[in-house]
Amino acid sequence: MRFTSLTTKTVKDSSQADVSRNAQLLLRGGYVDKLMAGVYTYLPLGCRVLSKIENIVREEMNKVGGQEVLMPALQPREIWDTTERWDKVDVLFKLMGAGDRELALGPTHEEVVTPTIGKFIQSYRDLPKAVYQIQTKFRNEPRAKSGLLRGREFRMKDLYSFHVDQASLDAFYEEVTAAYHEIYRRCGIGDITLLTYAGGGIFSKYSHEFQTITEYGEDTIYRIPGTDTAVNKEIVDDEGAMADLIPNYKKGDEKNLEELKAIEVGNIFKLGTRFTSAFGIEYADEAGAKQPVLMGCYGLGPSRVMGTIAEVLSDDKGLVWPDEVAPYHVHLVSLCRDEADIDRCENLYNTLCEKGVEVLYDDRAGVQAGAKLADADLIGIPRRVVVSPKTLKEDSVEFKPRSDDQAVITPIETFISVLMEKD
Amino acid sequence: MRFTSLTTKTVKDSSQADVSRNAQLLLRGGYVDKLMAGVYTYLPLGCRVLSKIENIVREEMNKVGGQEVLMPALQPREIWDTTERWDKVDVLFKLMGAGDRELALGPTHEEVVTPTIGKFIQSYRDLPKAVYQIQTKFRNEPRAKSGLLRGREFRMKDLYSFHVDQASLDAFYEEVTAAYHEIYRRCGIGDITLLTYAGGGIFSKYSHEFQTITEYGEDTIYRIPGTDTAVNKEIVDDEGAMADLIPNYKKGDEKNLEELKAIEVGNIFKLGTRFTSAFGIEYADEAGAKQPVLMGCYGLGPSRVMGTIAEVLSDDKGLVWPDEVAPYHVHLVSLCRDEADIDRCENLYNTLCEKGVEVLYDDRAGVQAGAKLADADLIGIPRRVVVSPKTLKEDSVEFKPRSDDQAVITPIETFISVLMEKD
Repeated sequence: MRFTSLTTKTVKDSSQADVSRNAQLLLRGGYVDKLMAGVYTYLPLGCRVLSKIENIVREEMNKVGGQEVLMPALQPREIWDTTERWDKVDVLFKLMGAGDRELALGPTHEEVVTPTIGKFIQSYRDLPKAVYQIQTKFRNEPRAKSGLLRGREFRMKDLYSFHVDQASLDAFYEEVTAAYHEIYRRCGIGDITLLTYAGGGIFSKYSHEFQTITEYGEDTIYRIPGTDTAVNKEIVDDEGAMADLIPNYKKGDEKNLEELKAIEVGNIFKLGTRFTSAFGIEYADEAGAKQPVLMGCYGLGPSRVMGTIAEVLSDDKGLVWPDEVAPYHVHLVSLCRDEADIDRCENLYNTLCEKGVEVLYDDRAGVQAGAKLADADLIGIPRRVVVSPKTLKEDSVEFKPRSDDQAVITPIETFISVLMEKD
Repeated sequence: MRFTSLTTKTVKDSSQADVSRNAQLLLRGGYVDKLMAGVYTYLPLGCRVLSKIENIVREEMNKVGGQEVLMPALQPREIWDTTERWDKVDVLFKLMGAGDRELALGPTHEEVVTPTIGKFIQSYRDLPKAVYQIQTKFRNEPRAKSGLLRGREFRMKDLYSFHVDQASLDAFYEEVTAAYHEIYRRCGIGDITLLTYAGGGIFSKYSHEFQTITEYGEDTIYRIPGTDTAVNKEIVDDEGAMADLIPNYKKGDEKNLEELKAIEVGNIFKLGTRFTSAFGIEYADEAGAKQPVLMGCYGLGPSRVMGTIAEVLSDDKGLVWPDEVAPYHVHLVSLCRDEADIDRCENLYNTLCEKGVEVLYDDRAGVQAGAKLADADLIGIPRRVVVSPKTLKEDSVEFKPRSDDQAVITPIETFISVLMEKD
């Protein structure tokens, strides 16, 4: 993509200023535009990042056997009455449809998925089942000041699983836990994202959150010493749970735990029969007797993950995208002025495109080197490649990974072949 | 995908009966589930078809230089007041957000895209621009009885283009027209979809609809003799327009036109400055003078196209998907009973999967041949391949295209190699 063809430009003025770091950077880089608090447009660069995150999520959900569906945002009041949540979910957007029908905009989809998939469950042979969607969700948040981290409208992957018994649910829950770790690893935040014990319910002792450590986080978690896991606030105050999770726990030990600020980037929950019993979803066992269906639900917000990456992996100069989610893999900066040099730079761009490398090419004429390099830092594509009269004299480019300070002069041919090995 | 692993089954009872042919077939085939009138869940088979249609649309929009974005469904009242449409669009869903903020659910996105993309338009050098999204839209339809053809919640591709002058807009409009023809061709309805002249506005004599001919259509169009184009109701009643479009037109000639029922599967419109002037979007020309930006908008609903294909390409027995949008390319039906035969059928399934062929494999035990073949017809995958003890004795399969009546016995190896040529 040529800079001169890209729909957006970097934004210098602060008219779109946002209080959160992730939104500031994404707005300035031309990744998103803010329509109102908690409601953003994903511009071409942002749409590419979001799609790449969603595709990683999709691939990992397919690997655990999830089958993709797409459920409606518009939901009739009746199904929320069935689960007695119409008045309990305080962020529920409510509206009136034609024929004076009361509707909600889905902040979650247990009320839709349970009766819908329940239609296809008759016998134990029909289980287990797992369906997921990647879809837009709505929450009427009173405050929405955290950019993509807490939206009124946001993207969500929600997976729901259906099981004959606890053992089947437990086994699938472990598989999804592993898939989540893989998703965060591929999104570049694996080593700073901790599996975090949270409160359970009637059907399981604990649920789990995935918390990404950052000083800007809204949540507080406590790392269990010597592990990659943590507990959240409600667990740290629960003596029984702590004794359960920490070897040789003594009362007061929780005061010595490392306290960390973090952003919740996913949560998984064993729902048991909470929703299947409300909708009367049962299966016939081998003896033909009716049995309750157990459910699990597994949430992960691609737009929140995008905001988290922007928040935690950025530096003073701008965004720093991990390879798998970067909008482009190479940021090619031309500092050429005379025609012969420009031609050589164009040739390099065309060669990379032909080889299938995703390149953002700063082909702007009349823009100073300093401004181009500042834009490259702000936009945060993993590999910056500068082509100038000086480098061309040596048949070379100046190559710098976004996360490094040091640029190296590399022969063009070497650069291309190394790049092809990587991609 | 194994039938025994697929989330859905075909639905025999009529508890989900729907008045429209497309919804009846899609419900019975397990492609969709109806949550309420005009609001459907896309189940795994339906989600695959919808994704394939959306990917065709995406590819063709990218080819004309469209850049993908994702705009919000939640829209503040202010932007609709700016264009004086808050009270004029009667299907606008309205709701109240936190802080008593009046909101609409977007049925279209001119009010969002114009000021958003306008921020990146300063000079003539910034034009033309074209952005599109593939996104969920909402219309508070008083009646929604046409299945996927008229939804309260539906999928839409909307492309918006921005230009310095009429010539640039006209040229792009032609490119999009060609892209639309290509989309319908790839979706299998190209030869029955007519470019149809519709009313224009201040900025152009005509807009255009794309109308797919079917006796079940809600619209009436009139084919212009000897062409692949038509006019809609408002044009046929306009003598000036008819004289313009039909060579040697004489008053009354319109009575002799072929009247056809059709479904509108797309529409394109030259907006001119209708929205850019409301939002004050101008560009500086080469002399530095401010000039108005011209716009075009181009709509195409993937979910409506899916409903249209179901409506027009089906037969008495069920759906008949064209190759590019079919949920799977091969429907492999096993009629084997003894272990050795089942093993050979499993081997064939595994071979096809390894070769990247998308196969739905009816591996159900204890289901009669008649029921399996009826399901295959209902689901409508383009190639049915039956493996039975009889065919295996000849190292063969029975192959039948869904759209043909005649099955042929083909050696397994021939079948595989012919398939690989096709896919």
